[in-house]
Amino acid sequence: MRYEIFFEKQLTFIEKELRRLLRAHQARPLSIHKAMQYAAFTGGKRFRPVLALSACEACGGRPKDAILAALAIELIHTYSLVHDDLPALDNDDLRRGKPTCHKKFGEANAILAGDALLTLAFEWASGIQPVERAVRILREIALAAGTRGMIGGQVADLESPAVKKTLAQHDFISRYKTGALIRVSAVAGALAAGASARKLKAMTRYGEGLGLAFQVVDDILDKDGYCSVMSAKEATAKAVRLIEQAKKEVRIFGKKAGPLVFLADFLKSRISSKS
Amino acid sequence: MRYEIFFEKQLTFIEKELRRLLRAHQARPLSIHKAMQYAAFTGGKRFRPVLALSACEACGGRPKDAILAALAIELIHTYSLVHDDLPALDNDDLRRGKPTCHKKFGEANAILAGDALLTLAFEWASGIQPVERAVRILREIALAAGTRGMIGGQVADLESPAVKKTLAQHDFISRYKTGALIRVSAVAGALAAGASARKLKAMTRYGEGLGLAFQVVDDILDKDGYCSVMSAKEATAKAVRLIEQAKKEVRIFGKKAGPLVFLADFLKSRISSKS
Repeated sequence: MRYEIFFEKQLTFIEKELRRLLRAHQARPLSIHKAMQYAAFTGGKRFRPVLALSACEACGGRPKDAILAALAIELIHTYSLVHDDLPALDNDDLRRGKPTCHKKFGEANAILAGDALLTLAFEWASGIQPVERAVRILREIALAAGTRGMIGGQVADLESPAVKKTLAQHDFISRYKTGALIRVSAVAGALAAGASARKLKAMTRYGEGLGLAFQVVDDILDKDGYCSVMSAKEATAKAVRLIEQAKKEVRIFGKKAGPLVFLADFLKSRISSKS
Repeated sequence: MRYEIFFEKQLTFIEKELRRLLRAHQARPLSIHKAMQYAAFTGGKRFRPVLALSACEACGGRPKDAILAALAIELIHTYSLVHDDLPALDNDDLRRGKPTCHKKFGEANAILAGDALLTLAFEWASGIQPVERAVRILREIALAAGTRGMIGGQVADLESPAVKKTLAQHDFISRYKTGALIRVSAVAGALAAGASARKLKAMTRYGEGLGLAFQVVDDILDKDGYCSVMSAKEATAKAVRLIEQAKKEVRIFGKKAGPLVFLADFLKSRISSKS
């Protein structure tokens, strides 16, 4: 597959820069930095930063134009997992087969490491050039991460008991809890490339569809969430519809849309063997 | 006292804008916003935003030039109290005589409300005009709030048992845990006024001294911290020395330094009756 090299290069760049910047940030006391690094390197797929770089390239930018935005979003994703795993929230002992941050470093350090990752995300985003772009991207990321985005979805999820959620509630939760950060990955990538209003709009819709589809796919694989209000067949149809629509949105990028179509199809491939 | 009207006006402006902006930010689900508003209005002295506005005015700016930076810092101060009070950290049931955020809204909501306040701080800071100033101020705030500032001090405090801390450790903890956010209040105020390098330097030193003095004074009043490595008399002398030095730093502002000198003297007045 011709895109394998493309994504391999992106992933190498993301891992290298994330490690380099986290190390450069290190200072006394070291323990908090160890907790942050542990959380940042637990085998995540880097879906969001890969999406940001791909969106940037589709809009004519270079990977380095979007790397700070991409890594800022990945830090926010990482912090959200650290805090979600805490005893007061999901109370998870393991993440991707390894002890969760609070299991490894204690609850106080996990809370503070999450806070530190969130804070560092904005420090990194403030370094985006030129400054007009930094402010615009940073604002989009803050909106996507806050109560009108990820945190809002998380709270809505905690508020209503799993068995009693309606379809509208699942849509709200998925759109915000999972969707907002994926949507802003595409948006930030486009903004980092200085995309036109038309391209930005297309990328926003693509990210929106992909973000929602991401959660539907997760629910199908985990047999929860959407699967409590519709059959697996219906959920699969919903995911496929969203993914195909997202692919249509990026047609305006022509050949450059290749990696974005590939990412959408990758999502579909996770459930296609099941349907 | 002639500065009473000055500070009264500042406080009214701060409270009004904080309430207005928090309300404007409100969205579904409301519960998280209620927790955020509860935490933001529990009778804090607003020392940091008052300092930011005063620093801005001393440098020739208007209060409205520094209000977003001032409120962003206050949100960060607020989130840090919410997270500090959590069972895994200080485990406090009361703050200023009222139930702490997690006692009132539950631990999960308190964690998320803290995260949301921190995120919102950066959203607000991104709105500072012009954008060059927004990026510079936001970066300073992120540095002051992160592991090279407030969180670093907090972790250092958690790491060493109270009875075993050396003077150097108390200095480190105070400089970062408490001092960093007070220092950046003065710095952000100066930057918001477009201060010259010379004025910015003076304001930075003033904020640094005031921030460290703030913690020494707190320790004297609480009979802990510095009081475990020196006598109350020695601690008082240290606080007075820091405060007088800070006042010297702002002499270059002439008459405009009045409110800054008043704030420093206010800090001294908290212990002067004790010495």
